[in-house]
Amino acid sequence: MSENVGVGEGESIVQKARMANRAAVKLANATTDEKNRALHRIADLVDTNRERILAANDKDVEVAAELTKAGKMSSSLLKRLKLDGAKIDEIINSVRDVAKLDDPVGKTMSAIELDTGLELFQVSCPIGVIGAIFESRPDVLVQISSLCLKTGNAVMLKGGSEAQNSNEVLFDMVSEAASAIDGIPDGWIQLLETREEVNEMLKLNEYIDLLVPRGSEQFVKYIQNNTNIMVLGHSEGVCHVYVDRDADLNMAEDVCYDAKVQYPAVCNAAETLLVDSAIASEFLPRMVERYLKAGVEVRGCAKTLNVLATDKYKVEQIKQASEEDWHTEYNDLIISIKVVDGVDEAIEHINRYGSGHTDAIVTANEETALKFMRFVDSSSVMHNASTRFSDGFRYGKGAEVGISTNKVHARGPVGLEGLVIYKYLIVGRGHVVAPYTGPHAKAFTHKPLSKQFSI
Amino acid sequence: MSENVGVGEGESIVQKARMANRAAVKLANATTDEKNRALHRIADLVDTNRERILAANDKDVEVAAELTKAGKMSSSLLKRLKLDGAKIDEIINSVRDVAKLDDPVGKTMSAIELDTGLELFQVSCPIGVIGAIFESRPDVLVQISSLCLKTGNAVMLKGGSEAQNSNEVLFDMVSEAASAIDGIPDGWIQLLETREEVNEMLKLNEYIDLLVPRGSEQFVKYIQNNTNIMVLGHSEGVCHVYVDRDADLNMAEDVCYDAKVQYPAVCNAAETLLVDSAIASEFLPRMVERYLKAGVEVRGCAKTLNVLATDKYKVEQIKQASEEDWHTEYNDLIISIKVVDGVDEAIEHINRYGSGHTDAIVTANEETALKFMRFVDSSSVMHNASTRFSDGFRYGKGAEVGISTNKVHARGPVGLEGLVIYKYLIVGRGHVVAPYTGPHAKAFTHKPLSKQFSI
Repeated sequence: MSENVGVGEGESIVQKARMANRAAVKLANATTDEKNRALHRIADLVDTNRERILAANDKDVEVAAELTKAGKMSSSLLKRLKLDGAKIDEIINSVRDVAKLDDPVGKTMSAIELDTGLELFQVSCPIGVIGAIFESRPDVLVQISSLCLKTGNAVMLKGGSEAQNSNEVLFDMVSEAASAIDGIPDGWIQLLETREEVNEMLKLNEYIDLLVPRGSEQFVKYIQNNTNIMVLGHSEGVCHVYVDRDADLNMAEDVCYDAKVQYPAVCNAAETLLVDSAIASEFLPRMVERYLKAGVEVRGCAKTLNVLATDKYKVEQIKQASEEDWHTEYNDLIISIKVVDGVDEAIEHINRYGSGHTDAIVTANEETALKFMRFVDSSSVMHNASTRFSDGFRYGKGAEVGISTNKVHARGPVGLEGLVIYKYLIVGRGHVVAPYTGPHAKAFTHKPLSKQFSI
Repeated sequence: MSENVGVGEGESIVQKARMANRAAVKLANATTDEKNRALHRIADLVDTNRERILAANDKDVEVAAELTKAGKMSSSLLKRLKLDGAKIDEIINSVRDVAKLDDPVGKTMSAIELDTGLELFQVSCPIGVIGAIFESRPDVLVQISSLCLKTGNAVMLKGGSEAQNSNEVLFDMVSEAASAIDGIPDGWIQLLETREEVNEMLKLNEYIDLLVPRGSEQFVKYIQNNTNIMVLGHSEGVCHVYVDRDADLNMAEDVCYDAKVQYPAVCNAAETLLVDSAIASEFLPRMVERYLKAGVEVRGCAKTLNVLATDKYKVEQIKQASEEDWHTEYNDLIISIKVVDGVDEAIEHINRYGSGHTDAIVTANEETALKFMRFVDSSSVMHNASTRFSDGFRYGKGAEVGISTNKVHARGPVGLEGLVIYKYLIVGRGHVVAPYTGPHAKAFTHKPLSKQFSI
């Protein structure tokens, strides 16, 4: 049974962190089969406890609905909080999908002979303890704990207070299901209860190795600015599409439309369109017309307004973009448009105002495309494709831990590989360093081996 | 010529960071040949300016010698500060060695077809801007800047104030030599002058992507605790050797001797010896005798003292270890010894008191060894080999950026790979996301490609 049982709410976060830490080393050594059996048991338990989950969720939703009515909570937050049969199906399927993924732990990444009988192996292993902080959506609790379980990481979870009842029930279920499997240690999963505990958690760099926040831009930024634990995530997605003078304009129109309109609420949707001045007067009227028809609010630079000035109908409907617009992630049916003098200005604009998330060029000119892809400093750069492709599932990762705009550890869409690291293992026959030092030092052989280390 | 020229000391650190940032994207696209030519030019310039370097260093050493005489500076710090002909030779050779290494930038790490004509490439690239902070040794300036140059990263350097004259001369040389090569942008290297600037630098997470501190344990810890930029490094090396009941005791003696005595001042030297109670009375007397002969101060647990009680000569020379000893990195000819009941207690002790750096087991029992290697949560774990092997050069990395006790990004001895990350590049034919969504979504092919992306 779990170490949590009987300890109760009085337990300090440091005690919880210590428990997670102690469990992490054991969980790191659970077999693939043990971890997968635990995952299937979690799915089963969620399936057979639908009523209990929905009842707990009802309690949260009731309180939240009052708050929404009083104008103290947004209706979109309320919507994300609410579970139903279909959402529970999704939770169950996503856990079973994680079970199907390859186990990324215990892979020999490299093997080298240092000298006769002295062999070095680099073997993938879990990171240790993950701190997961998320808002409102209780399904995230199950998702992030199954990703951690699969990768052998202990996890400390803090959900939004508005989802407290739902989170407690789901936590109990995950914890209970996993504990029933031999090889899964107690204490690998911990739930934090209060908002104050988040701030305490951010200080626990001794116990927590990586933070995975899920939530609004401000929320992620707050986490990033208030901890020295590594944070895996992105606070913003200010993505661009640049339409070059050598673009196929039909293609450009489709890509720009998809990047903005197909699903504007997500981080990989485009926020700013950069249009080469050489084709601006040909491209802008038709593109803007298509945007306006789709209900997109258009905010243009002076040149954009100028190009559209001949078209009275359109110019009345578009606003002048301010400096602030170039920095803004609308997450909505709004686009800012800037006319630039070729690919160099486009690159400069993106590296200055972008968030390093995803940016695209549309051009038939290979050389221009290559320049754009080399010099745009973003985690994903697209040539003749929509920014909306940058996503863990679309990249073939099976599961997405998040999209990272960090430039260390993991960048861009991150799958299970973002939750593993490696250790070096040396096997010798009593080798000591002394003979390999000094003026008559023995040389190392440094010969690649095709061996695997089974750990 | 460098952007630094003519700007002078009045320049703010934010301005310097912006310059480094702007230069980083250009340096990321320098060719291997350009980078190597710049490295050779740096080596040449250092070689032809020996007098100038030594004269500047003399000024620093003069002041430092006064401080040392007055008891305000340690003599070891003074020693590390002083350059001579042989040290300059080393600097030159190390730069030429970096030029010889494979360029880690621009490698296709994976290539996948997402759908017909839609290809995804993961290509290695520099991280961006590295912040390097180091104490006293001016040769570190040249070493870290050549590693950054080779990997295409811009670098902001802050050396110790005691080495200010040496650092300024070396900085000018690196900067001037690199600027003379086409393809190496101005501003890629920046020198910070004052101590206050370090604290400002720690806040620049908008511009600096990774910090590489070099210095004492307290120094690195200070950096780690005062920034939310990722820090690559280790504050401590509390390394252990565990001698198991199934060890060949001659082998154990040699490994324990090498791990402590061969070079005690370094982080991968052993600080604590754990001895299985089953062989303690056989092993401890001979091991302790060998340590004492080598001038090692021995601090033992109660059981150790007990085992040695029959041997009056030794027991008078060994001290009782305190709780604090188990946490301590002596970096000196001192060892703490604890008798443990088998491999489980050894693992527990190491995971509790160790620093996750390097730990070794000596045993002929494969099963015990495997358990130790699986459950000891350290960046390097050795079986029948000295802890002293954990080192970038010995691991065949060519150059060592540092040894990391982080559990994200890079762990253990880190070579050039610790200074690179990757970006995702997608090449399509106007692909949009819409057809891949909804109830009749097109499936992705996710087929591995054997192509390289040349960027």
